[in-house]
Amino acid sequence: MSDEPFNYQRLYEFAEKVFIAIGCPPEDASAAARTLLSADIRGVDSHGVARLSGYVRLWEAGRVNATPAIRIVHETPSTAVVDGDRGLGLVVAPFAMRIAIEKAKNVGSGWISVQNSNHFGIAGYHAMMALEHDMIGIAMTNASALVAPTYSAERMLGTNPICVAVPAGSEPPFVADMATTTAANGKLEILQRKGREAPEGWIQDADGSITRDAHALKKGGALLPLGSDPLHGSHKGYALGAVVDIFSGVLSGGNYGPWVPPFPAYVPMPENMPGKGIGHFLGAMRIDAFRKSEDFKSDMDNWLRRFRGAKPVAEQERVLVPGDPERETEKERREKGISLLPVVLEDLQNIAGKFNIQF
Amino acid sequence: MSDEPFNYQRLYEFAEKVFIAIGCPPEDASAAARTLLSADIRGVDSHGVARLSGYVRLWEAGRVNATPAIRIVHETPSTAVVDGDRGLGLVVAPFAMRIAIEKAKNVGSGWISVQNSNHFGIAGYHAMMALEHDMIGIAMTNASALVAPTYSAERMLGTNPICVAVPAGSEPPFVADMATTTAANGKLEILQRKGREAPEGWIQDADGSITRDAHALKKGGALLPLGSDPLHGSHKGYALGAVVDIFSGVLSGGNYGPWVPPFPAYVPMPENMPGKGIGHFLGAMRIDAFRKSEDFKSDMDNWLRRFRGAKPVAEQERVLVPGDPERETEKERREKGISLLPVVLEDLQNIAGKFNIQF
Repeated sequence: MSDEPFNYQRLYEFAEKVFIAIGCPPEDASAAARTLLSADIRGVDSHGVARLSGYVRLWEAGRVNATPAIRIVHETPSTAVVDGDRGLGLVVAPFAMRIAIEKAKNVGSGWISVQNSNHFGIAGYHAMMALEHDMIGIAMTNASALVAPTYSAERMLGTNPICVAVPAGSEPPFVADMATTTAANGKLEILQRKGREAPEGWIQDADGSITRDAHALKKGGALLPLGSDPLHGSHKGYALGAVVDIFSGVLSGGNYGPWVPPFPAYVPMPENMPGKGIGHFLGAMRIDAFRKSEDFKSDMDNWLRRFRGAKPVAEQERVLVPGDPERETEKERREKGISLLPVVLEDLQNIAGKFNIQF
Repeated sequence: MSDEPFNYQRLYEFAEKVFIAIGCPPEDASAAARTLLSADIRGVDSHGVARLSGYVRLWEAGRVNATPAIRIVHETPSTAVVDGDRGLGLVVAPFAMRIAIEKAKNVGSGWISVQNSNHFGIAGYHAMMALEHDMIGIAMTNASALVAPTYSAERMLGTNPICVAVPAGSEPPFVADMATTTAANGKLEILQRKGREAPEGWIQDADGSITRDAHALKKGGALLPLGSDPLHGSHKGYALGAVVDIFSGVLSGGNYGPWVPPFPAYVPMPENMPGKGIGHFLGAMRIDAFRKSEDFKSDMDNWLRRFRGAKPVAEQERVLVPGDPERETEKERREKGISLLPVVLEDLQNIAGKFNIQF
């Protein structure tokens, strides 16, 4: 980690300038920076400024359109397909989420499947947009194939995250944001950097045998779906990742399965791609489309307190509620700043040099 | 297993007569029998006629209303809360699913949260109702607490299953139907009957330590969420089960968490229940509310073929698609019949005697 943590605002403004530099309109640059930084502030370091250079390289490779004409392709009162026009997912997904929220205002719920987009940062940011409208927010995305279905030696699915955000009353909200794999790729990267082995059940090698080699992915291996192996329900993690892929890629007319475009710009695009870009799926449900908002919130507060108050397995452990760790990290980082790994810092300094931006 | 398998129709008619005997109107008795038998025919033996005596005992205990006035409590064009009036979930859930389908016809999607219901059989039956309407179907339910959240020594959630059913073109549909635990309770019951130990990662004992004792649940232990332990993502399985609980129980005004009523009639009801009965959540999305149905189906066929055709880890293995095992079982059982365990057969004979129904 760097000696001195960075203030949120400083990193935000830098990212905003970089997005301006690649040609994003000011509003889009702000939106992209806000989405990106939501990962750093919540502790999902793999999805924040560490990826900024990756987005720049995608733009350099002509795979990202900095001035997309994002549009609704087809819609009904509660659904729509949005074409992201190869824009940054960081911009396209909030656009689509606003449509979901608008539809939920009108008819109770809104569900948007997005085609022709790119990596959208953390699912949590988009789902949480619904909270201030007294709505439940849902966000998911497919991604390039790194995960092997149960009994498959081939990578067929991305880490395909799902987020569900639920508002509460006096308690902070419930926010479940998770990859549908046993371990996120970011955790594996940490082990690689430290030269450590991976725990059994995270990855398989190119033949499909479980391995502890943290570098197995570079050798044709694959991440394992949540559940790790058939005896522990890997077919369920596989099914969840598949649902995300179908809702995001097939329902939108985007790409799916092994045809989803890769994030690293140096990886060639898959052959015979059946659709357009990466797909997302975003949903919003108005609480008072079901029951009185104050009644729901009072029950949610009761739910959250009861679960946080569950008897722990040991005195030193706590039973957490989804969203607690990220919220605690956010509180700390708002106060103390965000530390960056030397490699990330160097990356940002290179971008600063390239675009002649002060950092 | 019994020597001679039972024909589907014979078991269906028997179940229908039992539901008539407890006072269900003929239409409800047919619906309940059809829902119940969908489990037996698809190979989910724990949720079919093996549970018939359990439903009868709930009725005897006054916990099931055989003549419910199921009604919409509140609605918007795309959402509703349904009050099941303590009816059989086997009847209440299809009622609610029909409303979801109707709303999807009108505004693209329909989402129904159900309160005051009982056990609804397999989630798959309800979600699959959407398929013939060219819709994606979603079904989930909460259930009495058997599962410990990550780091909890207490049982706080049911096995809370989720089903997502997606229509295809010339290929059979995608049907992911799964408990949000590492192993279903039914699998544990099989090990108990055989006197075998459970695999590591399925259950914990009353102190919250992982155990292989298949009888640990009776001694205050708990099932583990999908992922088994924190290192393998149990917080994700916990989060999924929690989402099911919130959508089914909190959004509807039903019970949730440790307050969900138990299925066995001899288990006392929880104290200070915050809502009414068990909750379900049912959804339907019209395919052509997103894109042309024939385009979607052609892509779904491509998806299904590509995944079934993935290179397997070993020659003797196949990569399956969610729904394949159940469909293969259904084909076999439609031809050869349904075998029943002696204990289940005896159970059915007892019910036959009690109501003077021929079996």
